Amino acid sequence: MTDAPGSPMELALALAAEAAAHAEAPVGAVIVEDGRVLAAERNRMRELNDPTAHAEMLAIRRALAQRGTGRLDGCDLYVTLEPCAMCAGAIAHARLRRLYYGADDAKAGAVDHGVRLFASPNCHHRPEVIAGLGETRSRALLRAFFAGLRQPGGPLTPPG
Amino acid sequence: MTDAPGSPMELALALAAEAAAHAEAPVGAVIVEDGRVLAAERNRMRELNDPTAHAEMLAIRRALAQRGTGRLDGCDLYVTLEPCAMCAGAIAHARLRRLYYGADDAKAGAVDHGVRLFASPNCHHRPEVIAGLGETRSRALLRAFFAGLRQPGGPLTPPG
Repeated sequence: MTDAPGSPMELALALAAEAAAHAEAPVGAVIVEDGRVLAAERNRMRELNDPTAHAEMLAIRRALAQRGTGRLDGCDLYVTLEPCAMCAGAIAHARLRRLYYGADDAKAGAVDHGVRLFASPNCHHRPEVIAGLGETRSRALLRAFFAGLRQPGGPLTPPG
Repeated sequence: MTDAPGSPMELALALAAEAAAHAEAPVGAVIVEDGRVLAAERNRMRELNDPTAHAEMLAIRRALAQRGTGRLDGCDLYVTLEPCAMCAGAIAHARLRRLYYGADDAKAGAVDHGVRLFASPNCHHRPEVIAGLGETRSRALLRAFFAGLRQPGGPLTPPG
């Protein structure tokens, strides 16, 4: 699936690239209501020393603060990577209308992989899910980032 | 299972009662490292207009800020109610050592109900789980709170 310039996923991809430039795993997230951007965030786990500071969690909290209604019904989330269980749970709690995600995440994803949270009969709110928007560019950012980590001298190189 | 006075679960139960006094669903959470309380939080969803402001999420973020190492390995979480998928995901991300929870939650719980996150082969970290600590008192708080919501004039009474 391709994506239009100036679109929310385009912005999310730019934020993912910005994350990588700050040594964060490249994931960006944007929340939109009626064409208006309520929140645009990227991973900040390293910066905040907080493994829960995923782009989606930060975007959801910011959009909730913007809106002040305690929920994000009628809002759509664009994120460059399939959300994990924590973020999928937050998406359900916030009652987001739609989830657009880029690359799938067979290892940590919880939407179309792993626990498939929204398919669980216990899940109290299911957003509409559109996968694959901006997938190619999202995956390229992730591959380049993790390849860099494994380079000689990179953080994932075993100590000499 | 019973619980000792002055214990972390005792503190979590006191926080759950405080939550109810503030019209929040009564859940409290405490994170302990080597007998020292790193974080003690309660639900603040209504107060913050944020459906992700669960006691566990707030406690995990506060304990991470206290510790500054980006993880909570060697730390234990005491929470009065079985965590949901969002909070269970955050527990795994933070690498908490043990999870003690009080009442089980057949509807929204994600540890021993629903998606059973820690039993998923995709889950990258599994805390040791001890269920039922302080269960009776936790359940009494929850029952009283939700019965109150359904009373005439309460928030869950149909209008007119």
